[in-house]
Amino acid sequence: MKTSRIKRIAINTGGGDAPGLNAVIRAVTIAALNRGWEVLGIRDGLNGIFLPHLYPDGGVVPLTRERVRGITHLGGTILGTTNKGNPLKHPTQRKDGTWYEKDRSDEVVRAFKTMKIDALVAIGGDGSLTIAHALAEKGLRVVGVPKTIDNDLDKTVVTFGFDTAVSFATACIDRLHSTAESHQRVMVVEVMGRYAGWIALNSGVSSSADVILIPEIPYDLQKVAEKIKEREKEGSKFTIIVVAEGAKPKGGTASVVSKELGRAERLGGVGERVANEIQQLTGKETRCVVLGHLLRGGTPTTFDRLVSLRFGAAAVRALEQGKSNVMVALDPPTVRYVPLEQVTGRMKAVPLDCDTILSARDLGISFGD
Amino acid sequence: MKTSRIKRIAINTGGGDAPGLNAVIRAVTIAALNRGWEVLGIRDGLNGIFLPHLYPDGGVVPLTRERVRGITHLGGTILGTTNKGNPLKHPTQRKDGTWYEKDRSDEVVRAFKTMKIDALVAIGGDGSLTIAHALAEKGLRVVGVPKTIDNDLDKTVVTFGFDTAVSFATACIDRLHSTAESHQRVMVVEVMGRYAGWIALNSGVSSSADVILIPEIPYDLQKVAEKIKEREKEGSKFTIIVVAEGAKPKGGTASVVSKELGRAERLGGVGERVANEIQQLTGKETRCVVLGHLLRGGTPTTFDRLVSLRFGAAAVRALEQGKSNVMVALDPPTVRYVPLEQVTGRMKAVPLDCDTILSARDLGISFGD
Amino acid sequence: MKTSRIKRIAINTGGGDAPGLNAVIRAVTIAALNRGWEVLGIRDGLNGIFLPHLYPDGGVVPLTRERVRGITHLGGTILGTTNKGNPLKHPTQRKDGTWYEKDRSDEVVRAFKTMKIDALVAIGGDGSLTIAHALAEKGLRVVGVPKTIDNDLDKTVVTFGFDTAVSFATACIDRLHSTAESHQRVMVVEVMGRYAGWIALNSGVSSSADVILIPEIPYDLQKVAEKIKEREKEGSKFTIIVVAEGAKPKGGTASVVSKELGRAERLGGVGERVANEIQQLTGKETRCVVLGHLLRGGTPTTFDRLVSLRFGAAAVRALEQGKSNVMVALDPPTVRYVPLEQVTGRMKAVPLDCDTILSARDLGISFGD
Amino acid sequence: MKTSRIKRIAINTGGGDAPGLNAVIRAVTIAALNRGWEVLGIRDGLNGIFLPHLYPDGGVVPLTRERVRGITHLGGTILGTTNKGNPLKHPTQRKDGTWYEKDRSDEVVRAFKTMKIDALVAIGGDGSLTIAHALAEKGLRVVGVPKTIDNDLDKTVVTFGFDTAVSFATACIDRLHSTAESHQRVMVVEVMGRYAGWIALNSGVSSSADVILIPEIPYDLQKVAEKIKEREKEGSKFTIIVVAEGAKPKGGTASVVSKELGRAERLGGVGERVANEIQQLTGKETRCVVLGHLLRGGTPTTFDRLVSLRFGAAAVRALEQGKSNVMVALDPPTVRYVPLEQVTGRMKAVPLDCDTILSARDLGISFGD
Repeated sequence: MKTSRIKRIAINTGGGDAPGLNAVIRAVTIAALNRGWEVLGIRDGLNGIFLPHLYPDGGVVPLTRERVRGITHLGGTILGTTNKGNPLKHPTQRKDGTWYEKDRSDEVVRAFKTMKIDALVAIGGDGSLTIAHALAEKGLRVVGVPKTIDNDLDKTVVTFGFDTAVSFATACIDRLHSTAESHQRVMVVEVMGRYAGWIALNSGVSSSADVILIPEIPYDLQKVAEKIKEREKEGSKFTIIVVAEGAKPKGGTASVVSKELGRAERLGGVGERVANEIQQLTGKETRCVVLGHLLRGGTPTTFDRLVSLRFGAAAVRALEQGKSNVMVALDPPTVRYVPLEQVTGRMKAVPLDCDTILSARDLGISFGD
Repeated sequence: MKTSRIKRIAINTGGGDAPGLNAVIRAVTIAALNRGWEVLGIRDGLNGIFLPHLYPDGGVVPLTRERVRGITHLGGTILGTTNKGNPLKHPTQRKDGTWYEKDRSDEVVRAFKTMKIDALVAIGGDGSLTIAHALAEKGLRVVGVPKTIDNDLDKTVVTFGFDTAVSFATACIDRLHSTAESHQRVMVVEVMGRYAGWIALNSGVSSSADVILIPEIPYDLQKVAEKIKEREKEGSKFTIIVVAEGAKPKGGTASVVSKELGRAERLGGVGERVANEIQQLTGKETRCVVLGHLLRGGTPTTFDRLVSLRFGAAAVRALEQGKSNVMVALDPPTVRYVPLEQVTGRMKAVPLDCDTILSARDLGISFGD
Repeated sequence: MKTSRIKRIAINTGGGDAPGLNAVIRAVTIAALNRGWEVLGIRDGLNGIFLPHLYPDGGVVPLTRERVRGITHLGGTILGTTNKGNPLKHPTQRKDGTWYEKDRSDEVVRAFKTMKIDALVAIGGDGSLTIAHALAEKGLRVVGVPKTIDNDLDKTVVTFGFDTAVSFATACIDRLHSTAESHQRVMVVEVMGRYAGWIALNSGVSSSADVILIPEIPYDLQKVAEKIKEREKEGSKFTIIVVAEGAKPKGGTASVVSKELGRAERLGGVGERVANEIQQLTGKETRCVVLGHLLRGGTPTTFDRLVSLRFGAAAVRALEQGKSNVMVALDPPTVRYVPLEQVTGRMKAVPLDCDTILSARDLGISFGD
Repeated sequence: MKTSRIKRIAINTGGGDAPGLNAVIRAVTIAALNRGWEVLGIRDGLNGIFLPHLYPDGGVVPLTRERVRGITHLGGTILGTTNKGNPLKHPTQRKDGTWYEKDRSDEVVRAFKTMKIDALVAIGGDGSLTIAHALAEKGLRVVGVPKTIDNDLDKTVVTFGFDTAVSFATACIDRLHSTAESHQRVMVVEVMGRYAGWIALNSGVSSSADVILIPEIPYDLQKVAEKIKEREKEGSKFTIIVVAEGAKPKGGTASVVSKELGRAERLGGVGERVANEIQQLTGKETRCVVLGHLLRGGTPTTFDRLVSLRFGAAAVRALEQGKSNVMVALDPPTVRYVPLEQVTGRMKAVPLDCDTILSARDLGISFGD
């Protein structure tokens, strides 16, 4: 049996920080050690194994019970992470001095063999899972664990980190509510969500926002201004607008922001732009708060802790059962396994007819459409 | 069409308190008012309409936007609730002085007609939904919203209140962890769950408990004592045991507790009994903490707020679409409707082969079996 | 005796929002009602009584037990607040069309008399207390309750709202920590504190920040850059910098920001400027998060709830004892009363030799000096 | 100068667990290392140095930056603690087989000398500080840091752990509020406080309890029953009673509980007894919740984190300045030093005329007197 051969596995975490990474690492480690396997942690995505010269103290570290003790509730990742260092597209210099992106995945697979690592649990988003898929195609035994704060990964109803982000965004909007009301202001809150509006939608409904702008529904600020005036007439002299960073005006495009990020940040993101325009359209004092980085970190909620622990243990069970090239997915109430090729390169947008959108409209929340 | 006839609906909340009740009430109210319907709230289960003489100021109160403002995050229910006053089994005296339980549901249905209430949104657990089902069978248009802290209602993956209970239980166990470790104690934590061990299981795994005892898996305290000694040997001189109130020993029964509750509480519940026995078996200082009432109340988590708001709005949409005799259910990522007859009188136990149980075992957690 | 004459008092809240305002309002109301006094709430600072034409429904509202029920933990103020409408400097047009600031405090005192309000509990910051002092000098019986998120009011060790702001700032910095570490970034966090660095200091020490920049200690970013490099050498590849909004460079001035606030906000506040410069000086990826509005609102911490309730009740006791023209102050463990004239127009800066500054330095935290 | 001689210090933690211990340990360690001192941690009170044979791996461990990293917010103590092992009263067997308590403090002082430990930072309550005082009298350089959840240590306005305990107790009572109200129950909440009622008083006022029973004010349950009936008449059909574990009836005594703790716990503590009696007196459904162990552990609040860090650093500064035989104390806004002899053997009860008691009465809260 394939399974009987596993003696040593590795774990890595790639892409942005997300609450729950350490809980996954702990669960994978304990579940594997309890099977008598050895466990190694790869530093900073795959860099620890792919670019070992960067790590004089070792790019791969043994994970013991002691090392993963008490980390379930810690934000961040004890292994480090990175958005750089894609072995499928490694910047390489030609003899003529020009550069190209070289696929060095063969070397990575070889490195695993050399280190006698039988399998990899790859925790990451679309980018990291694409790499994991490529390594699996080349023969490395791989199980992926989905990671996305934005909840935009396909084939899993949700993954860890999202509940924490939505909860903290909701807590922040709650706080802004009382100030907005006391000062009779319009408050624009920009949350994460470049391609999908899940965080904005869920936190906006939970915190009783008045307007929610998401990438899936291009907005018209005239409609938003009308909503504000209508509220004014009914005696509500304040308005809370939640904006996903990828929201864009009708007929407009959000891509300028993405393309020239540095400049866009200086000019202010979509939240700042919406706030300025709303202040001009309504004459009301309008302020913008950008929650961005605050939503990535922090202690996972209990929900996210549990999903993380279940995902980590499920990944080890998958390896034991001889599975590879699959991703652990949440299909409540259960966990199941999805072929990696069905996951990568896709994006899970908010369906316009999903019950949360319908419920938001039932509650009188405007999407600016 | 039936739907066009709705002009006035009522809402009630029955059974125990649960975080999120007020959010459901708010969502139902706003979604109905936005359709031009009138909304009434029935006090204390169905008592407000069934036993009107108890309410000199009116057992049924109009619900306005103003009345439901800012209640999303409040624990409890602005309508009150009760475990007494079942119109299907109303204690009634015969002429000979003896008592019997009379089905007075016809009167209740008539009362709705008299008050020109076209439909009822009934928020409650198995008991309340059974009543709702009976009323629907007699012609009242009814949509149920499931309520159970214990998560033991069938046909919905989860409902509001459970995430809050699990989260708070986890926070409590986290707190006990540091004290147990500092003082090298065994700590037994009793949580709710008379028939199903969901709270114990989820909070136990999330908080890295060492032992979890649930009704679905009869326990053997010798096994638990062995686990404690094994941990001792490995240098962990403390142990956390989470016990569902309905957990029972192998070959034993938990029913004594249920039958004579007053007495059982004086003697101490299952937590107290487990603690005493463990102390005798291991000689280690063992303490018991009963979380019971702490898990019923409080501000709902963001997850529960959202489920509540979605359920409330979905109940109104169901009524608008002419649905009746159904319960709103969560089948993530969506909400759907289930015939009430498929829900009542059932119980959703923890499946012994569910991935959370498997994951708990993978992580080395003992179920005392 | 003066005291026996009190039959009706009023409460108002002025200046910015602060967590705990509603708890003070509740305590004043209950304590006064329990003495048989009537209680009125003035809307939006003093506007409700001073500019009654703005309030068709009444600028002064009766406060009953029912009205203040369950508001202890709510952010904001049920009375509304404002930074506009100073009766000491009311913009008034001369016959020649030019404008001047007229002292209309006599009218305000008359309005209290006309409404048979015997005394005022004025909750507010330096501006509101200055007005309260002026009214007291003209014969109105007044007790002030200090309000300042920034903790820069003199003669009270602390007041409500500050603990909440520091706690939330600390929670935010905790969250940024894990992301900063995982991504090896410099993170600049801008917190409130235009004139005094209390929030930055307390939240920075509590959250183990590496650098804290406050108005009291002009900073040199070269020193900060050195600190970052030194940390780098020791293996800490991330740095957290907490900046009070009023912090200023050595030899520089923060006043540009205050003077032309609109423009300054467009250019970015001090946090943005520090982040840009640090990125240039160190070459490290540096991000800025502005917590501003998030620190004003929200549910008060238990500490702030208690201070608020104690202050509200103490204000009523002061009125009962015939005191006037005083402010309630916290001199732990007790509450005492300070003449308003000793409070207004002053500012409580962080003393450079206070033990928190010394402790921060002991812990290796740099102030950029 | 004395000061120049310090090269190595030790830290210990004694008595019960308290949130903030680890933050003190971290601050002492970092502040000492930054002065070039070596730092050792003694395990389990003084046992690590006094009973070294119990610690095959060493009863004294070096504390490095790495070891104290990221522990500020962790509950418990990385050094362990104990209520056993008092070197002033060490159970010792005479030749005739009888036992007596021997003062072995000389040996302890010698052990410090042998290990070349120049000074001790002793973190603990009255018991631990009494030992610390004795060691100081015998020539060991000692600075004490006060630890008491109950806030009953004299000469410091407050210490770390108390704010966390009060905050969590308040959060728990908040949760019970909604359930009590929904179910129209009396809820009795027992909190810590054997000799002083600070936790009960502060959490009771903060959470709007209706009755607070503390050791300082003997109670009469008839008065409490009247309060409940009075509330009933006014339409409030629920009541929240907070009881300190040391509260006692008028003319009665709480000492039975203390003397025969094992038995008392089986019979139920004061909360259980009050609940039973109240149910009999009022006929209302009454439940009891015991918060005991939940208040000892957990993550410290920001307030407690800061106090802990300030205390730790202040202890090191004291040693540097040549101080000994003193305790660090909080005299807000500053930290100062108090001779240990002025602290030990005393108890800080709630003064009956303190403003919090007066405020509670102003707010209509009954003390059962």
